Amino acid sequence: MVCEILSVGTELLMGQVANTDAQYISQRLTAVGISVYRHMVVGDNAGRLHEALASALARSDMVITTGGLGPTEDDLTKETVAAHFGLKLIEDADSLSRLNEIALRYGRKMTENNYKQVLMPEGAIVMPNQVGTAPGCIIEAKDKIVAVLPGPPSEMKAMFEAHLFPYLQKKSGQTLVSRYLRIFGIGESTLETMLIDLFHLGTPTLALYCSTAENTLRLSVMCGPHDNPDAILDPVENEIRNRLGNAIYAEGLSETMAGVVFKMLRDKKLTVSFAESCTGGMLASSLVDQSGSSEVFNESYVTYSNDAKIRLLGVKPETLMTKGAVSRECAEEMAAGARKRSNSDYALSVTGIAGPDGGTIEKPVGLVYISLADKNGSHAHEFRFHGSRTDIRTASIKHAMNLLRLALIKNDES
Amino acid sequence: MVCEILSVGTELLMGQVANTDAQYISQRLTAVGISVYRHMVVGDNAGRLHEALASALARSDMVITTGGLGPTEDDLTKETVAAHFGLKLIEDADSLSRLNEIALRYGRKMTENNYKQVLMPEGAIVMPNQVGTAPGCIIEAKDKIVAVLPGPPSEMKAMFEAHLFPYLQKKSGQTLVSRYLRIFGIGESTLETMLIDLFHLGTPTLALYCSTAENTLRLSVMCGPHDNPDAILDPVENEIRNRLGNAIYAEGLSETMAGVVFKMLRDKKLTVSFAESCTGGMLASSLVDQSGSSEVFNESYVTYSNDAKIRLLGVKPETLMTKGAVSRECAEEMAAGARKRSNSDYALSVTGIAGPDGGTIEKPVGLVYISLADKNGSHAHEFRFHGSRTDIRTASIKHAMNLLRLALIKNDES
Repeated sequence: MVCEILSVGTELLMGQVANTDAQYISQRLTAVGISVYRHMVVGDNAGRLHEALASALARSDMVITTGGLGPTEDDLTKETVAAHFGLKLIEDADSLSRLNEIALRYGRKMTENNYKQVLMPEGAIVMPNQVGTAPGCIIEAKDKIVAVLPGPPSEMKAMFEAHLFPYLQKKSGQTLVSRYLRIFGIGESTLETMLIDLFHLGTPTLALYCSTAENTLRLSVMCGPHDNPDAILDPVENEIRNRLGNAIYAEGLSETMAGVVFKMLRDKKLTVSFAESCTGGMLASSLVDQSGSSEVFNESYVTYSNDAKIRLLGVKPETLMTKGAVSRECAEEMAAGARKRSNSDYALSVTGIAGPDGGTIEKPVGLVYISLADKNGSHAHEFRFHGSRTDIRTASIKHAMNLLRLALIKNDES
Repeated sequence: MVCEILSVGTELLMGQVANTDAQYISQRLTAVGISVYRHMVVGDNAGRLHEALASALARSDMVITTGGLGPTEDDLTKETVAAHFGLKLIEDADSLSRLNEIALRYGRKMTENNYKQVLMPEGAIVMPNQVGTAPGCIIEAKDKIVAVLPGPPSEMKAMFEAHLFPYLQKKSGQTLVSRYLRIFGIGESTLETMLIDLFHLGTPTLALYCSTAENTLRLSVMCGPHDNPDAILDPVENEIRNRLGNAIYAEGLSETMAGVVFKMLRDKKLTVSFAESCTGGMLASSLVDQSGSSEVFNESYVTYSNDAKIRLLGVKPETLMTKGAVSRECAEEMAAGARKRSNSDYALSVTGIAGPDGGTIEKPVGLVYISLADKNGSHAHEFRFHGSRTDIRTASIKHAMNLLRLALIKNDES
């Protein structure tokens, strides 16, 4: 089945927003084996919208539209689709009662403008909008399918997942089953070399995505209703796990490094504290970002000045004098001090030069020391990161959390 | 002049990336008074690319393409454009020597594949690529203009700004001059009511953009080479400033609330410290995000547990017992304690319930107390924020920084 996506909205043509609707829908269609041959964007203009719809339908089996379902005169998508197929617009009773309900909830009467939103092409499958006011619909006519979705991404996604995706899955009979392995600490080209034979397997398909300091590996296979994806994916995933070991820190796309570490600490009933210089609170914040973080975290220190490092963490003035604040020794004393004063099981410290100013030949921008303190002492690691101030700080917190993750795994094994 | 944007790339149709190239180009074309009537995306397919290009040229004066300039056989944009106009592809000497230079720098020989990148349609204006290897070009033929740009956003933007934008500016003779006013603490609908007459002026055009806890107002006017935009923009900007006063915290799009507060503190040689609970280090991090932050910031405390609030900040155990950790009194003692212990001019504290768990009827999710301590004492403000854990934490840090901003303005006036 071949599909085109037609997005309607002057705000897209003026560049006020990117067309993330088309991106989202394309990803999901790929997941059910439907090919997307074209994206189009037109403004709120009847003639151009009509021409774009007609040409898209002439080329493909299905057109998915986004946008142009609002209550104003500018909003023309449904009207244009109905006219194309010679269908009348008729009142949809369910949509009407839902809009009346919403109006009532806000103590208003439904406006005449809003009434336009409950008119649907006759014979259409109506898709209710759980987030906003404009319902969508699916029209099957003249051997073609047109699905009409709202433009605001939150409304579009909710409607797509609840109504259109199951409909398309049934039509296509195929599903792309994917697994994602999250990898930390191995570079892209090294990974490719380590897994080169698996990349050439063909089934399942392997794809590698890169972001700051980490990589995501996708394994996927297109399956019909009677196929068993696990039988194809399991052996390859196992082989990858054998080769990469602890470098795989999570599965799926929603996990973060901080989330993984949080869950490990919580399950083991252990606590951590932080002593941050150049990251300035980001490390603590990434943990507090997890709901329930109070179970593993009591306190943390942002010690930017030398005086604060001495007073709050007990760093020795001689260390700062002889080695400097950005040094292995200072990082180790910071973590040891944070662990002792907070009485926590682990402490992580970060001290470095995030730039863009402050670098020297001996201590260039990007030089960062991260120390992990536990009951056996405090041990610092040296890193040399690249990029902007934000890149360097982001890489620092991910590497710091990864050191703790590896220590928690080792602790389990010993 | 009417323009269409034609983006080429299978990665767009598979939803791996959003079409941010089209968004960027659309914004910039709007800024020189060129109308964009359509965006199109096609894959690396000769037939569909040819058909899309021909239909776009039939409808408009100019087509800008992005993508499909790589060294592989899949990359067909230049070839398709040349064929459409019946132009030969000929070697461009400057591009050839630049590619040889790059190859030399990396100690390689230029590959045959790369040689394809130096072939240009005869008569084209060549646009060098300062970031990558693929040059672009502008073709003027049969009363139409086609501009060919690379796909990777960093390459596309550099080439667009250095070569295509000046070319288009000259063609159009018009420029949209815009000013941006950043507004904090007044809701969208209140703003619209306060400025309704100015929205109706027509010249300059006013537009309002909303994000978490703040609004941006754009004033813009389209000018020819002999117009004076200041004469149109100044009186309206002055009137807006009269009405909104200190709610305007910055100009332009690059400033952040934390950046504004950092500069005010630095210019006045004042210091600040933080005592954070539910924001967990985000407030400190937003300040440390500014290069040079050590001038205004020495240290900060993340006190998540009651024990840490007592031990590190001197919050009274009775306060925690009788009022709780999320209370006006606790916030005031936290800020006062942070200011005293860090010996800084100001201190900000945040304590609240960021959710999604932990709310009660008396203290629901979203209840946040923010206190500002200065030499005259510590004074807390109560907020009730909405949304996700991240929304609540983000709103908290912006409101906290805004309280400090207003205090710094008041300090100036007194």
